[in-house]
Amino acid sequence: MTGKCFFWAGRYSQNLNERVTLATELNVFADFKPRLPEKYRSSKYVFLANIAPDLQRDVLKQVKGKPKLAAMDTMNYWIERSNGDLRETLKHVDILMINDSETRELSNEHNLLRAAKQIFKMGPSTLVVKRGEYGAMMVDKHGVFCVPAFPLEEPHDPTGAGDSFAGGFMGYLAGAQSTSDAALRRAMVYGSVLGSFAVERFGLDRPLSLRKSEIQARARHFSKLTQFKL
Amino acid sequence: MTGKCFFWAGRYSQNLNERVTLATELNVFADFKPRLPEKYRSSKYVFLANIAPDLQRDVLKQVKGKPKLAAMDTMNYWIERSNGDLRETLKHVDILMINDSETRELSNEHNLLRAAKQIFKMGPSTLVVKRGEYGAMMVDKHGVFCVPAFPLEEPHDPTGAGDSFAGGFMGYLAGAQSTSDAALRRAMVYGSVLGSFAVERFGLDRPLSLRKSEIQARARHFSKLTQFKL
Repeated sequence: MTGKCFFWAGRYSQNLNERVTLATELNVFADFKPRLPEKYRSSKYVFLANIAPDLQRDVLKQVKGKPKLAAMDTMNYWIERSNGDLRETLKHVDILMINDSETRELSNEHNLLRAAKQIFKMGPSTLVVKRGEYGAMMVDKHGVFCVPAFPLEEPHDPTGAGDSFAGGFMGYLAGAQSTSDAALRRAMVYGSVLGSFAVERFGLDRPLSLRKSEIQARARHFSKLTQFKL
Repeated sequence: MTGKCFFWAGRYSQNLNERVTLATELNVFADFKPRLPEKYRSSKYVFLANIAPDLQRDVLKQVKGKPKLAAMDTMNYWIERSNGDLRETLKHVDILMINDSETRELSNEHNLLRAAKQIFKMGPSTLVVKRGEYGAMMVDKHGVFCVPAFPLEEPHDPTGAGDSFAGGFMGYLAGAQSTSDAALRRAMVYGSVLGSFAVERFGLDRPLSLRKSEIQARARHFSKLTQFKL
């Protein structure tokens, strides 16, 4: 619904994979009570971006009926400070989409498969782990699916890559009106495509100038990156 | 030709991806002059495992004619202490197969695509980067190909995973008698399959008990891990 509108100061390590949080100030989020516009209340594909877990739950309650798919993001700040609230929100979503270090912190397991098993006990039936330059991994009842990151010679800015990934992922599923295994795999690819465009330049320039044909061309490039025949 | 017969003391970090070298003692390798048995001298697919680069070159010279494919491994010890010799050996091989940190150290580039470009100037036309739990990446004139690591809940011992990867990779190519792009992609998969069996247990128990049907079954599992249709 909304990204990091609160103030978050952090830095990325040299490898652009690890984010170090220096400070978090909630600012307007301290008293924020999001109200979903009427036309969004019948959404069937709902993504709860990274805000306080009680607000995420509050937003989800405003959606009429049961969405076909609810996914959420979160971060170390909420894992550490609002763990009870986070656990409550997790009961109501199908997909948790976080990075490796958050996965490990939330589950208390270093191994990502064991971490997924712990997270499934909390509510979600699918875990999507964002791994920076190493791509993304999805774990669900069908098993594991991995997609690499698009290789870029000059990745400029990882800020927003995770939100762009989520946008591509959810946007694909909402457009396809499907949550099949094949659709989820394609969603992982489109998420990675959008994430790769986000890191190509600083700020929003690249995502805002993006055409559908460019997205499709890069998605086809992902096939070349990973496909083989035995 | 041979693995780490010299004494190498190191440790792996908690994530099992990073190797920290504590000490290297050459022992028998200090005066070692490998002599290729006669029946190996007509090999068409040659892999120079991680030993002193002048010894690697010496082994390669014992092969009659020009091999169809020569690949090599190396490590930080030689990059730092025998750089000139290493550069000389690199001129004579087609494929360099090393891990991420070695790639970065040798090329002086953090980004792996830029690193590959530097390494191509040194001789090899193909770079295979082994990335531990993140799988392996191949860069050549055809572009980039990525294969994930096989997801294991209990990886026990990364020692020998790289040599097993190389064995699976070279063994496949030698069996297929091909260096086509499709064959190299399959070699990456078989390398990853063999690497995954190596880390499953300590020591050589798993590789020694391995049957061909198990290798094939795991290779098919790699298809499930990565395949999607747009």
